Amino acid sequence: MNQALRLGVAGLGTVGASLLQLTQRHADELALRCGRPVVVTAVTARDRFRDRGVDLSAVAWYDDPISLAQSPDIDVFVELMGGADGSAADSVRAALDAGKHVVTANKALLAKHGTELARRAEQNSVSLNFEAAAAGGIPIIKTLRESLAGNRVGRVYGILNGTCNYILTRMEREGIAFDVCLAEAQRLGYAEADPTFDVDGFDTAHKLALLTAIAFGTEINADAIYVEGIRSISTADIEAADELGYRIKLLGVATRTESGIEQRVHPTMVPKSSPIARVDGVTNAVAVEADFVGRLVLSGPGAGGDATASAVMSDIADLARGDVVGTFGRPAHTLKPYQQAVMRSHAGGYYIRLAVYDRPGAFASIAKRMAENNISLESIVQRRRAPKADAPEHPQPQAPQPVMLITYETTESQVKEALDRITADGHIAEKPQMIRIEQLA
Amino acid sequence: MNQALRLGVAGLGTVGASLLQLTQRHADELALRCGRPVVVTAVTARDRFRDRGVDLSAVAWYDDPISLAQSPDIDVFVELMGGADGSAADSVRAALDAGKHVVTANKALLAKHGTELARRAEQNSVSLNFEAAAAGGIPIIKTLRESLAGNRVGRVYGILNGTCNYILTRMEREGIAFDVCLAEAQRLGYAEADPTFDVDGFDTAHKLALLTAIAFGTEINADAIYVEGIRSISTADIEAADELGYRIKLLGVATRTESGIEQRVHPTMVPKSSPIARVDGVTNAVAVEADFVGRLVLSGPGAGGDATASAVMSDIADLARGDVVGTFGRPAHTLKPYQQAVMRSHAGGYYIRLAVYDRPGAFASIAKRMAENNISLESIVQRRRAPKADAPEHPQPQAPQPVMLITYETTESQVKEALDRITADGHIAEKPQMIRIEQLA
Repeated sequence: MNQALRLGVAGLGTVGASLLQLTQRHADELALRCGRPVVVTAVTARDRFRDRGVDLSAVAWYDDPISLAQSPDIDVFVELMGGADGSAADSVRAALDAGKHVVTANKALLAKHGTELARRAEQNSVSLNFEAAAAGGIPIIKTLRESLAGNRVGRVYGILNGTCNYILTRMEREGIAFDVCLAEAQRLGYAEADPTFDVDGFDTAHKLALLTAIAFGTEINADAIYVEGIRSISTADIEAADELGYRIKLLGVATRTESGIEQRVHPTMVPKSSPIARVDGVTNAVAVEADFVGRLVLSGPGAGGDATASAVMSDIADLARGDVVGTFGRPAHTLKPYQQAVMRSHAGGYYIRLAVYDRPGAFASIAKRMAENNISLESIVQRRRAPKADAPEHPQPQAPQPVMLITYETTESQVKEALDRITADGHIAEKPQMIRIEQLA
Repeated sequence: MNQALRLGVAGLGTVGASLLQLTQRHADELALRCGRPVVVTAVTARDRFRDRGVDLSAVAWYDDPISLAQSPDIDVFVELMGGADGSAADSVRAALDAGKHVVTANKALLAKHGTELARRAEQNSVSLNFEAAAAGGIPIIKTLRESLAGNRVGRVYGILNGTCNYILTRMEREGIAFDVCLAEAQRLGYAEADPTFDVDGFDTAHKLALLTAIAFGTEINADAIYVEGIRSISTADIEAADELGYRIKLLGVATRTESGIEQRVHPTMVPKSSPIARVDGVTNAVAVEADFVGRLVLSGPGAGGDATASAVMSDIADLARGDVVGTFGRPAHTLKPYQQAVMRSHAGGYYIRLAVYDRPGAFASIAKRMAENNISLESIVQRRRAPKADAPEHPQPQAPQPVMLITYETTESQVKEALDRITADGHIAEKPQMIRIEQLA
């Protein structure tokens, strides 16, 4: 039997504890599958004496992540502390510079410093692996980096945030409002007390940046991604989508276009018949379209201690076998800079919901503005709101009525211009809702 | 730049031609991603002068696969000829013995000789890779072998034959009979002139044997798999399944049970809400349930020259990077012998369709036989057939009527015994139809 691969694990939260359980429970099988034992030899965490349900008696304790990262007693530094900077960044840099391979589940760290860290790993001839940082237990990193090495990717898109998908699924199934669903998700532990990072799309953007770097060979530039969250989605939008044959998902989408790679995160109307439309609850899914393979769809758990530990172990097993791959599947210096996509030129269909004052000429005026911007309409849904039981029998002529439009393919700038003009005309009572439609096979 | 990886390709059918196109079209990107150029240096095929739409001018031609396999001018022998024996088997053995890595898409070869060939590869310290041999472009081999290295797999199941799924999908959507769908599939090139291998389940069994070997560490023993094809499925079964909340798919299923690994291929009723139920047409899908990751589902093209070439290149790229993995993800000598599962003891729910003579006491007799075998019924669907326009107004009392039953969980031997007794009682007009139900989350 070959020498054991020695792991130093920094961070013993849910994922760290699961990883230790995994290495202990499956020690024999791991040794068979990796060709050598895989052993956690040292750990560090904030609280040494918390009970985590794992036996730490044979494991060296370090008080400081940087000392652990530089320890001569480890071969791989496993960073499970989280955070884009601070201890995580410092200790990962220290480990790479000390010639240690690094495995991390830290998407925030990579979204901020990924390009720099990949270069640093390359300079030190070590690996920086991060299967667990995007889509949890789903093996999308290895798939893009290795299985699709012979493909030119055209588009990668996915449901990358379980909190948002849980909220949208409940809104759809139970017809309840965003705020109510969010509170419920918080109560059940699916959403953080401060939900901004999830519901405003930033978490999805971080993961998308990682997928894009591998799929298209671009540098990480998460700040350049167009990001829109799900707070503006109403049950009226979800019902209209249903009626029109769509479902609403928060997608991260990276597409090869004539003017470069477009990265965007926003609520998206997807055809009900597409596999991604049927991914419900906290489950994640990623689809890849590429020239030789066609379309692959991978779905599974996007979070959770055990599923994340499974992905971390995937990276560790690769290192145990001696498989060293560039962080983003190619030499770091060949990554191309990523420029922000100009969303005004994004072309596709759009869903538009307007609260239109119920008065003569209002709809004619809206239709005229659309026509002026060369926007053709595929569907129009206008439903008179049922008068409430205690409402006057004849609603006020001024009461706004929801009107939903689906456009044929047009550009974002045309839609924005038309909506600005419609707003200026004064026939609508609220800011227009606009949701992009993604054409999926 | 490192030295090129030199490929010798045996077989220039659809997949071989696609592979050559891939290596030529993506040469620069492949070199970046693999760390070295990947070049086809030599080929062999039956007909030297057929136009395959690829430039062979810079490639050495061999008349004989064995000479190619042993050529000092190649590093990897890529076997794309097909067939369980003959040239394919001989040349793969020759290549391994000559110290060449082998990449193959040949499921028949591996299903018959997989254990022996894995040992031979190990003895010669080379790799035998076969991502393309199961589920085409879907990266299920790497996922099971590498990504899930830290997991104990409980169940693997999937739609592994596009021909069968195409036929079942059309039967369901259009209400047309098996024979008509098969003829249509043959006309469109989705089914062979001799469809036995596909529709009787053997192709699925071959692929399942490969997945099982990796997932559970068993030797390949395709002959020991319980196999039932889709010829007996009627539109009545499909309609009844729909009514009862199920769809019918030909599944390959490998499960860890108390008495060992159970492998089976048969038409299966799957809940409509399960992801696998929604995989339509020629698309394949594989689900894996494992202790740490939970459930993963991968779907994509199961066949086709380009998708298969993508999977072949995945194996080649691993070799180019120097990643050498055991054929079935562990040392070949550690694979455990596989004994045929006793299907009589398979436990689960069952769908049963009986053509019952419409006479007093018939149903009571059937219900009694079920009860005698401790079988509880979850649903009973009995629909009187609408009399045809030209039929006598009162059907003959003897005309058989379809009765569909869904049982709660019971054992296969109980069901078989009850059906034998019901048949002997003489109340039914045809051999009973019995379809297993798979419980899926």
